[in-house]
Amino acid sequence: MVVKSQIRLIKSLQQKKYRNQHQLFVVEGIKAVNELLASSIKPYMVYTTATHVLENISHSATQISSEILHKMSGLRTPSPVLGVFHIPESKPITFTDWIVVLDAIRDPGNLGTIIRLCDWFGVSHIVCSNDTVDAYNPKVLQATMGSIARVNLVYTDLPFFLKESSVPVYGAFMNGAKVYEEKMPEKGLLIIGNEANGISKEVAAFITKKIHIPQFGLSTAESLNAATATAILLHELRRA
Amino acid sequence: MVVKSQIRLIKSLQQKKYRNQHQLFVVEGIKAVNELLASSIKPYMVYTTATHVLENISHSATQISSEILHKMSGLRTPSPVLGVFHIPESKPITFTDWIVVLDAIRDPGNLGTIIRLCDWFGVSHIVCSNDTVDAYNPKVLQATMGSIARVNLVYTDLPFFLKESSVPVYGAFMNGAKVYEEKMPEKGLLIIGNEANGISKEVAAFITKKIHIPQFGLSTAESLNAATATAILLHELRRA
Repeated sequence: MVVKSQIRLIKSLQQKKYRNQHQLFVVEGIKAVNELLASSIKPYMVYTTATHVLENISHSATQISSEILHKMSGLRTPSPVLGVFHIPESKPITFTDWIVVLDAIRDPGNLGTIIRLCDWFGVSHIVCSNDTVDAYNPKVLQATMGSIARVNLVYTDLPFFLKESSVPVYGAFMNGAKVYEEKMPEKGLLIIGNEANGISKEVAAFITKKIHIPQFGLSTAESLNAATATAILLHELRRA
Repeated sequence: MVVKSQIRLIKSLQQKKYRNQHQLFVVEGIKAVNELLASSIKPYMVYTTATHVLENISHSATQISSEILHKMSGLRTPSPVLGVFHIPESKPITFTDWIVVLDAIRDPGNLGTIIRLCDWFGVSHIVCSNDTVDAYNPKVLQATMGSIARVNLVYTDLPFFLKESSVPVYGAFMNGAKVYEEKMPEKGLLIIGNEANGISKEVAAFITKKIHIPQFGLSTAESLNAATATAILLHELRRA
């Protein structure tokens, strides 16, 4: 039996305001729900419409009708499994390795891909400006492919954070040094700028080293996408 | 004056079948339309709802009502400019440089990002399996950011194409050699596999060199996204 207030609560979690208020987020799809159940992220509730699906779920699930699932879900065609999880508390940042710092990343797909890249390249901490898209946005979660459970995310005021940091601060700029001609230090901050405007002036003031991913050929391509640039830069940091 | 048959034609171009039949495709948004007008791709028609927007359009545009634009558009909230362009003819493939070969890339965002990456890294030819998503799909075009006009795209039967090739064939596999420990040749084919299944058996039979992007740390991340893996591999080819 699911009460109306519960349905309303879960539906409201599509919005950042209510995710912050309740410190809960929603994940849909059997694979994604199972990945989070296997992680350190704490489940709040799991719902399913299908009894046969329950066998593959590593947590007790409440059986509901597809009518109720439609009311809870953010998808046009809901998957038979919906999980509600507690937003994990941010851990303190330690400056012992490279840290990725996001300056106003707005596209949920880009943030999800960057989280997945950090997981792949063993970057444990991601510091996001307060105007970066919310990591518990359903579209971000879809793109992270479970990596959200393996990185520590902190939202903060970037200039305030950067003022406190004592490690080198790297950022990509058109007039930076060729990234593969640089000897990278063992730790530092890697700033990734906004999709349209790049790194903001306020944040750029803290950059200690400008780097650049060289273009090739005669193309008039404007720039690399934020997520593909992050892929290349993390690869360069780790091969060093 | 726009006749009904014209509206029907343009609306139908949201579907691959009709794009192929008419050899036309649709681009929406002033920036994207202007980029294509400045390229070698031939315009068929440009429509706009706003007179003040016309000044920024480098091609004569037919003024229409927003009611008619809504009927033509593939967007819920149409941009005031819609362009219809001729699909350019594929040029013959020349084996003088690296060529990117896509084996069943299905996600429009991934294909668009890969086209943009090829443009950035000066890769002129992209060979797609017949089951790769159509490059003139509106979601692909949105992600290419104008790069579609600067690369040559060919859709073909990959085993047939690979049989005819005499250059090295590289592909990413978990058991491949570390990509940054390899000396890359000056030309070759770089195969990018499907998002879920990787490189197909049929295509894998033609691989002459397996490479691998090393993971870092203790993560259980499954894999890199097809587009981010392409970013790192193209960067490695070009830095060689």
